[in-house]
Amino acid sequence: MPVQPILIDGQWRTAQATGTFFAENPTTGERLPDEFPTSAWADCEAALEAAVKASAVLRTLPRKQVARFLARYADLLEEQKAELVERAHLETALPKSPRLAEVELPRTTGQLRQAAVAVLEGSWALPTIDPKINLRSCLGSIGPVAVFGPNNFPFAFNGVAGGDFVAAIAAGNPVVAKAHPCHPGTTRLLAEIVLAALAESDLPLATVQMIYNLAPEDGLRLVADARLGAVGFTGSRVAGLKLKAAADAVGKPIYLEMSSLNPIVILPGAIAERSAKIEDELASSCLAAGGQMCTSPGLVILLENDATEKFVDGVKTKLEAAKPTVLLSSGVARSLQTSVKTLVDAGAEIITGGGPETGPGYRFANTLLRVSGGTFLTKSEKFQTEAFGNASLHVVVKDTAQMVEVIGRLDGNLTGSIYSDTSGSDDALYDVVAPILRIRVGRMLNDKMPTGVAVSSAMNHGGPFPSTGHPGFTAVGIPASFRRFAMLQSYDNIRLERLPEILRDKNPAGQTWRLIDGAWTQGDVLPPA
Amino acid sequence: MPVQPILIDGQWRTAQATGTFFAENPTTGERLPDEFPTSAWADCEAALEAAVKASAVLRTLPRKQVARFLARYADLLEEQKAELVERAHLETALPKSPRLAEVELPRTTGQLRQAAVAVLEGSWALPTIDPKINLRSCLGSIGPVAVFGPNNFPFAFNGVAGGDFVAAIAAGNPVVAKAHPCHPGTTRLLAEIVLAALAESDLPLATVQMIYNLAPEDGLRLVADARLGAVGFTGSRVAGLKLKAAADAVGKPIYLEMSSLNPIVILPGAIAERSAKIEDELASSCLAAGGQMCTSPGLVILLENDATEKFVDGVKTKLEAAKPTVLLSSGVARSLQTSVKTLVDAGAEIITGGGPETGPGYRFANTLLRVSGGTFLTKSEKFQTEAFGNASLHVVVKDTAQMVEVIGRLDGNLTGSIYSDTSGSDDALYDVVAPILRIRVGRMLNDKMPTGVAVSSAMNHGGPFPSTGHPGFTAVGIPASFRRFAMLQSYDNIRLERLPEILRDKNPAGQTWRLIDGAWTQGDVLPPA
Repeated sequence: MPVQPILIDGQWRTAQATGTFFAENPTTGERLPDEFPTSAWADCEAALEAAVKASAVLRTLPRKQVARFLARYADLLEEQKAELVERAHLETALPKSPRLAEVELPRTTGQLRQAAVAVLEGSWALPTIDPKINLRSCLGSIGPVAVFGPNNFPFAFNGVAGGDFVAAIAAGNPVVAKAHPCHPGTTRLLAEIVLAALAESDLPLATVQMIYNLAPEDGLRLVADARLGAVGFTGSRVAGLKLKAAADAVGKPIYLEMSSLNPIVILPGAIAERSAKIEDELASSCLAAGGQMCTSPGLVILLENDATEKFVDGVKTKLEAAKPTVLLSSGVARSLQTSVKTLVDAGAEIITGGGPETGPGYRFANTLLRVSGGTFLTKSEKFQTEAFGNASLHVVVKDTAQMVEVIGRLDGNLTGSIYSDTSGSDDALYDVVAPILRIRVGRMLNDKMPTGVAVSSAMNHGGPFPSTGHPGFTAVGIPASFRRFAMLQSYDNIRLERLPEILRDKNPAGQTWRLIDGAWTQGDVLPPA
Repeated sequence: MPVQPILIDGQWRTAQATGTFFAENPTTGERLPDEFPTSAWADCEAALEAAVKASAVLRTLPRKQVARFLARYADLLEEQKAELVERAHLETALPKSPRLAEVELPRTTGQLRQAAVAVLEGSWALPTIDPKINLRSCLGSIGPVAVFGPNNFPFAFNGVAGGDFVAAIAAGNPVVAKAHPCHPGTTRLLAEIVLAALAESDLPLATVQMIYNLAPEDGLRLVADARLGAVGFTGSRVAGLKLKAAADAVGKPIYLEMSSLNPIVILPGAIAERSAKIEDELASSCLAAGGQMCTSPGLVILLENDATEKFVDGVKTKLEAAKPTVLLSSGVARSLQTSVKTLVDAGAEIITGGGPETGPGYRFANTLLRVSGGTFLTKSEKFQTEAFGNASLHVVVKDTAQMVEVIGRLDGNLTGSIYSDTSGSDDALYDVVAPILRIRVGRMLNDKMPTGVAVSSAMNHGGPFPSTGHPGFTAVGIPASFRRFAMLQSYDNIRLERLPEILRDKNPAGQTWRLIDGAWTQGDVLPPA
């Protein structure tokens, strides 16, 4: 079989390859038949050139044409659902049902359709008009966006279909996508569908470029290229920090989702009140998708007492009762093993699990680790090693002062949860703990596990460094996620007919919310009274 | 006289100094009597510790208390206007009237009062509520903000009174300000007034720290400190890029305003139609404040023909007729000389000026340089050297294709202007040129010079790199400038009484615009129908 082609400028082309690779079936550990290229820089060069041309056209297109593309792409994805689910399962071992067919693909098409509505509506750009001095501003397209998709969501975060892709396109930018090398076949299928949707919607075919893999140094060169407008990356902290340094050096906006422990603080009253219920919630959340979620609860903070001992024991029992999920890849399994070893070496005790499972495929025993607050504080960096997968660390603190100290040492995280009782006995402690946690997390929760990230206008799937690269932006949520891939543009004394439609006196289609003279309105700019 | 004290934790303290310095009177070149300390790291340490404590308190204060402080500070500044204007004139040579007394100080108090209104109103935080799933988000304070003020606006961009200061405080953060060493006495006066305003408003006195100067390595250490939330910097590109690298390495948001040529594209029809008027506008804009404005027109692009020759000659005549302004400092004069030399060495021709003026004080002849489009393209980087001060470079292109090529080589800028005629003969060329310029500038203008930056909701005083560090944010304009010093915070299933007031069901005071279920409203969250 020939090496799989890449998508550049609307054409499936033979890559300028420096080598090739195969995906693996994580359920069996076997190599899958298709051979994929690792692209040389020449492919990036061609992708950038095509994207720059597409960018100039995309800026001029009516918003409804972009919206039509997004909606049409969603339709076509649904038409090919069976094949997509089959391939994604083969490459990731994620269950076909409900995960891929009933959860992730609908989420992906849902994002596309929400984005289509938001593009038509236009309010995401925060159009602002100061009529007295004829000064107007809005967010506008930033130029070609490089999207690096992660291993754990083959559809919903895929570089040619997921959240960053949708946001980049919705903000008016072409995409240069790097597939995740764990699911290249899925990405190939998605890219075929996106190309069909582009053609049907009369968008430039070069709106989407897709390559499968790159040498690390070419990735660094790509994100620093002057032709690129911005970068979206979801993946490991190690890779993310390198890309960040390369982009930062040339002032290129880069949005990274890199790592998160998603601390859960369980106050003593909550355990006294509903221990079994919280054990269930925690065990389910830790094991969801084999713990391979950005918001998996990797760190639980508990106060030392008898009830906590029973709680930890309850969680242990529940983890032991569940069959370990097949992990996404050999790489995830290896990295999980390494991280658990780091935690143990630092002084964590294994309560259950801690090593790989025997048998075919990549499985790791459901793992619970434990450390005292005192020990945690001696090496708080080490104990914040992310163990991506089905492992979680319980930190048992000796008193509330130590709880405060442990929380005060936490790095930036995507989420942080606090469980408290309903009768008020935890309220005083909540008031102490919550402000310290608040500034360390993007999304704070009460009495709820963080897995399950709604695509909502109020979602923040972001957080302080090093969970992301900038605490002001979210990777999930429409329309806020679009704003990452936009630049602020003022129009000063620009003649009315030369303004973008969204900033003219007449509200386009009467549905865009605009800030006129300090008030949000769907109305027109009125002539001076 | 003793060395001037610094302001830390509400106290005027003796600095831990590594050395001292004096300001100079640019009008005479003489040293001013007050001796100011260059702080050792110990002062930063103390400032950070105080700011962290203040930050925790500021987060909990009612918004009206912060608003009251901002308004009160404005009042007190007006009460001390005479002394402030006198001192600022002495240290900067900026004219007392109208510049300092009737323009810059009113602008400064105006910013404070606009911010007070915006803080009370609350809409700047983009409060967003998804009632169906009880998910809510808004922008919240990011923590202590280090502000580095520039030399050219002793009030309106001062680290303890200007735009970054106002935005940081309005977003709920304390400030650690570094005075500009060219006007330390002015900054000292402002800091005395700010301390009085804090005391009168019952804000933590440690809301504002002020030091005069720092070793460069301590500046780098400061912006990378874990206790700091963000950084605001206005100054040179060289210093800005170093601070950016230090902050980026630890994922600290840093907002920089570094340099801008503010290109002016004058299309041939405009010159044919109203040459004399545009000559006047350009000469006035170039000479405003001795060209020491962030938005001074440093690069003018013109099409080669007889009318352009007359235009250039007209500008020359006007520049020669005006007496050169005293520059802000010996440093500005030296740097202007160096930049002009760089341009000449690259191949620019001096049309008028080009060297320092004789006599007391720091003056440079009003300078016009010229280069052909062809020569510009051979060294487009060199010809984009910022000559901060009263110098401007005219690039005369041989045809419209070369005009497009020159504009396509421009780096990111704060502003870009296009002049075109009113009868339509320039319209076709405008349509070619405008999209290329648009993506290179933060604020685009028609038939208008860029100097004069209104403090408006629709202002963008920002732009693509290297004019700033991120093209999504503005340093001027209320409320948008506040958003730089904030983090996005979601509240997921948080019990209602624990939510910030601005996200509760009841709209606080019924005046905050909030995005509820996708619609902007000043109303309450309604119970489900």
